[in-house]
Amino acid sequence: MAKQEDLFKNVISHAKEYGYIFASSEIYDGLSAVYDYGQNGAELKKNIREYWWKSMVQLHQEIVGIDAAILMHPTTWKASGHVDAFNDPLIDNKDSKKRYRADVLVEDHAEKILQKAQKEIEKARKRFGEAFDEEQFVNTNDRVQRYLSERKEILERLGRSLTNEDLKDVKALIEELGIADPETGSKNWTDVRQFNLMFGTKLGASSETASNLYLRPETAQGIFVNFSNVQKTGRMKIPFGIAQTGKAFRNEIVARQFIFRMREFEQMEMQYFVRPGEELKWYEHWKEVRQKWHFSLGLGEENYRFHDHEKLAHYANAATDIEFNFPFGFKELEGIHSRTDFDLKAHEEHSGRKLRFYDPELQENYVPYVIETSIGLDRMFLAVLSASLKEEELEDGSSRTVLKLPAILAPYKAAVLPLVKKDGLPELAQEIIEELKWDFNVQYDEKDAIGRRYRRQDAAGTPLCITVDHDSLEDRTVTVRYRDTMEQKRVPVSELSKVISEETDFKHWMKK
Amino acid sequence: MAKQEDLFKNVISHAKEYGYIFASSEIYDGLSAVYDYGQNGAELKKNIREYWWKSMVQLHQEIVGIDAAILMHPTTWKASGHVDAFNDPLIDNKDSKKRYRADVLVEDHAEKILQKAQKEIEKARKRFGEAFDEEQFVNTNDRVQRYLSERKEILERLGRSLTNEDLKDVKALIEELGIADPETGSKNWTDVRQFNLMFGTKLGASSETASNLYLRPETAQGIFVNFSNVQKTGRMKIPFGIAQTGKAFRNEIVARQFIFRMREFEQMEMQYFVRPGEELKWYEHWKEVRQKWHFSLGLGEENYRFHDHEKLAHYANAATDIEFNFPFGFKELEGIHSRTDFDLKAHEEHSGRKLRFYDPELQENYVPYVIETSIGLDRMFLAVLSASLKEEELEDGSSRTVLKLPAILAPYKAAVLPLVKKDGLPELAQEIIEELKWDFNVQYDEKDAIGRRYRRQDAAGTPLCITVDHDSLEDRTVTVRYRDTMEQKRVPVSELSKVISEETDFKHWMKK
Repeated sequence: MAKQEDLFKNVISHAKEYGYIFASSEIYDGLSAVYDYGQNGAELKKNIREYWWKSMVQLHQEIVGIDAAILMHPTTWKASGHVDAFNDPLIDNKDSKKRYRADVLVEDHAEKILQKAQKEIEKARKRFGEAFDEEQFVNTNDRVQRYLSERKEILERLGRSLTNEDLKDVKALIEELGIADPETGSKNWTDVRQFNLMFGTKLGASSETASNLYLRPETAQGIFVNFSNVQKTGRMKIPFGIAQTGKAFRNEIVARQFIFRMREFEQMEMQYFVRPGEELKWYEHWKEVRQKWHFSLGLGEENYRFHDHEKLAHYANAATDIEFNFPFGFKELEGIHSRTDFDLKAHEEHSGRKLRFYDPELQENYVPYVIETSIGLDRMFLAVLSASLKEEELEDGSSRTVLKLPAILAPYKAAVLPLVKKDGLPELAQEIIEELKWDFNVQYDEKDAIGRRYRRQDAAGTPLCITVDHDSLEDRTVTVRYRDTMEQKRVPVSELSKVISEETDFKHWMKK
Repeated sequence: MAKQEDLFKNVISHAKEYGYIFASSEIYDGLSAVYDYGQNGAELKKNIREYWWKSMVQLHQEIVGIDAAILMHPTTWKASGHVDAFNDPLIDNKDSKKRYRADVLVEDHAEKILQKAQKEIEKARKRFGEAFDEEQFVNTNDRVQRYLSERKEILERLGRSLTNEDLKDVKALIEELGIADPETGSKNWTDVRQFNLMFGTKLGASSETASNLYLRPETAQGIFVNFSNVQKTGRMKIPFGIAQTGKAFRNEIVARQFIFRMREFEQMEMQYFVRPGEELKWYEHWKEVRQKWHFSLGLGEENYRFHDHEKLAHYANAATDIEFNFPFGFKELEGIHSRTDFDLKAHEEHSGRKLRFYDPELQENYVPYVIETSIGLDRMFLAVLSASLKEEELEDGSSRTVLKLPAILAPYKAAVLPLVKKDGLPELAQEIIEELKWDFNVQYDEKDAIGRRYRRQDAAGTPLCITVDHDSLEDRTVTVRYRDTMEQKRVPVSELSKVISEETDFKHWMKK
């Protein structure tokens, strides 16, 4: 566990040191749960987005993309259910004036009880040494049993109260457990209230009633409201998909775990419109396709698992999460949902427009069913970054920090390094960059000894280093060094473009 | 003039018909001054953004990109001057409750006076026929002279009042001119007040004072607040640039002209940090570089002009617009501004952090000066779309609608068309797509006669059509048809990838 926490801290500090992620408005001490992508982060994020877009749109003839606005007509959110039901239960401390998610206060309390049980287990492990049988100990030790069942009861009661929207009981639970404001220790709480997670704003077009707008809390609705326009002007036939990437906003009270849960985040979503009755076939299909996409990046198949939803949202008849093994454990990275005809029907009702498809084979008009694949771009970024960051022991006893990003996603594909800063080597290096820069994002670096520059590029995630030495002047060959294996080989300058393509371009990457 | 208006109407309806632009939330009758990009528009927009990014970031070793959040610490906007000075003068009609920009009411009134003068000129033109000397007529006709001087006086008084922030006089002017609510005719006006153009929202993290946030009204400040983080972690040396693309929001009261002035829009900005005293040299440099970039797209050099600012903003010591010949006349497309050290100094003052660069050559610490290039992505989209849409008379007397998009920006690079829907031609067409789709966005179309499909692809802007016929089955060659010239040539299937690359990839495009 301690190791996991260290890894997470390393990821966060590495992300800052190498220009991947900065706190937003850091000079003003940051804005809580909002982050900026730095010079390497912007490229990595862009490359992930592009990898998704090409895989989903360019490779599929029946999928097209759109780019809908963040600001939408407010009735959209009435139809989608967000105005009425997109809430968190909040509680304020009357003394500190701090606001908390009531369910998180209770969950944190339950977590502490679990930690007590774990401490008992650790103590026993030390006492019994190699003879220690954890399972037997847990099953028989009274104190551990008490902790575990206490925790279970708390979480079950919380779950029941939330399901029944019995906010009074959530407050009662907090008081019974004696939960105090984590910052001040005060137990002087208000009632628990529902708080809508959408950011509101006003469109000031009229004096009497400035329209109340929301920043979209998800990109999906931008696809649903454009369903007919896209289907008709794009001459799409079912089954077909509409894809979109873009920002969404949620006024999270408890926003933590770095870029995992942010108030402003980016989604990559695809809604696949199918015949009613065929949705579960397509649901299985997209589970498979999306899993393959993840595996294609080589972050380790053991780092993924499906987590099927037991309790389904009101709009779904099947749903699963693709979870990733983040530094803080397995958490949702992508959701795949069979949304039925809930959204299109809701928009039909609220707009009075027909959102149907005439199926020439069935000779029938119907509201299509929808399979959604929805992945958080920032979460994918965090998955890629944390799975790639390695501390390696080398044969000579030294160690290196290396960011083993999938080459296709790396910000810079290659760094061109003159061995020394004289004798015409920088000039030849620049000449090589002038050739490569039209096809690849490449970097020049002449400062410090070559070994140090290799380490710097390793840590920044650059898959290839191209070193120009005195022989290069004679025979127009250079040394190509591979980040992951540290192998080097001699390559003619004229073949560099091919070597980089083979490592980093979409076609080679997807076909390997 | 009528022709121009027709062109604009054509652009708007073509944009909808071919899936480029839809009104946002159209099923709810749209959201004023907000638009969605459809299946072709999303690709065109993405391609413009990518063309800019590659040209600005990938081709310049000393420029890096970032991706800062839309939500920023509110003090950012205090420092930038937006909280105090980013206002429009508004007036409400007490009867209709409609809100207007007071300056626009006066300008529209002045425009009507100008139209009266133009009517006189038109009448005279008809009367005198070929003998008509417009200049002489304007100079000597009393009525025209009266209109022109009346208009001039009004605009001068408006300018003076706005400069002196004398809003009472703006109201007085409206009353003296007898300006009525354009929708209802009522002259029952409120006072004129300043109205801040930033969209506000609330971060609900604390019960007492939810923080007031703004949606950023420009992306530039995201670059300034990250200046030190990027400079240090990226080891940047002056001169260097930071580029960014992203959404910005302005609560415009008068938002019109389609996607030209939207409430939600996307900017592509680059801030170039230079030594104090060298800023005007770099200002000239970037004017040149940006002009070249525009010309590289082939939309017609006559469609661009520089418009230097006579009255400079408080932060600038030189500024120009690159104006484009839109269907409604020459208007700002891009701004190039010498922003001095205004922004970085303001953030130093408000944050208490030093935003300096240690210049090793000068052995001196200083706040860099800044040259900004700032282009509206949506405006660029409109420029490309409107300059590309042509109605052509053909030799056989028929006509065609063709969207002559720069091939590098076209949503689909090629359409693959089986001549007939049988005999194995669709299968071969699909085989070709399977080969090409890894490198290019290509489309399949088998419906309707081949001539009709060509016209459809012409109108959608696809630069190449690849037709598979019965000979193709024998000799593995296909017909490539070029959108702009309608020329056709026979090409081996194995060379298609090369042919498309030569027409559409970044390297070939930039080097031609």
